[in-house]
Amino acid sequence: MADEVLFEFLHMEIVGHVYKVAEKNDQDDCVSKLESLGYRVGQSLAERFTRDCSRFKDELDTMKFICKEFWTSVYKKQIDNLRTNHQGVYVLQDNKFKFLTQMSSGKQYMEEAPKYLALPCGMIRGALSNLGINCLVTAEVSAMPACKFQIQIQRQ
Amino acid sequence: MADEVLFEFLHMEIVGHVYKVAEKNDQDDCVSKLESLGYRVGQSLAERFTRDCSRFKDELDTMKFICKEFWTSVYKKQIDNLRTNHQGVYVLQDNKFKFLTQMSSGKQYMEEAPKYLALPCGMIRGALSNLGINCLVTAEVSAMPACKFQIQIQRQ
Repeated sequence: MADEVLFEFLHMEIVGHVYKVAEKNDQDDCVSKLESLGYRVGQSLAERFTRDCSRFKDELDTMKFICKEFWTSVYKKQIDNLRTNHQGVYVLQDNKFKFLTQMSSGKQYMEEAPKYLALPCGMIRGALSNLGINCLVTAEVSAMPACKFQIQIQRQ
Repeated sequence: MADEVLFEFLHMEIVGHVYKVAEKNDQDDCVSKLESLGYRVGQSLAERFTRDCSRFKDELDTMKFICKEFWTSVYKKQIDNLRTNHQGVYVLQDNKFKFLTQMSSGKQYMEEAPKYLALPCGMIRGALSNLGINCLVTAEVSAMPACKFQIQIQRQ
């Protein structure tokens, strides 16, 4: 019963702590700290989840894993929609993103959203990095609690 | 599959972050920050878990809830042994405490243990506070990965 709320409550506290400790509430610095923290968690999770899996056959296959198994393990639901331009950009849409459901949908709360999306973005980046895909991940909220995570593959 | 490791990995990262940010690695300050963070998580969890419960009939009944339902939800196992002196002291023993199982059992790692016990102590204190019991919680490790949590009730 607790698994879901435990992660949620702990996440809220981490965000609160990082912002409280930061000097002058430096937003960029906090976002970057939360992102790194999420990155390392995502890496470890992907490592653990795929321990007994066969390799993914391609990039799209890996993205499907993130949308299904990974998302379900972490957020107890799948990503609702996955799109790609077939040129290295993937958009994962969650129509009811867990960390936004507790927030009012008023426009005035929109600016609070990035706080709660930094760690999740980091987790995606970390998981993909562990699976051999280097990328940038950003999040966009147009109507809460829906959220789009954009993944831009970094080719060397 | 991920619930357990998600909490574990996230906890490791929080501990790492708190210690990294602290000036001169002030151990007391870090322990206290982690304890407060755990306190608030514990409060919220107890609030959520007992939403649909009837009230506990006494202090011992509340402790049993912590040892069984609460511990199982958070750590996926029950407390192995509960003892009390019937004068306001309860000792909860976990023979294989999750956050210590990854650590080597060598004596030299013993001093690292308090880092990983501060947040769990705070969680117990927060949960009990939400259930109307004020207390102090300390942890003691004599042989890893076993751990004893001592709860000292504070009577007004």
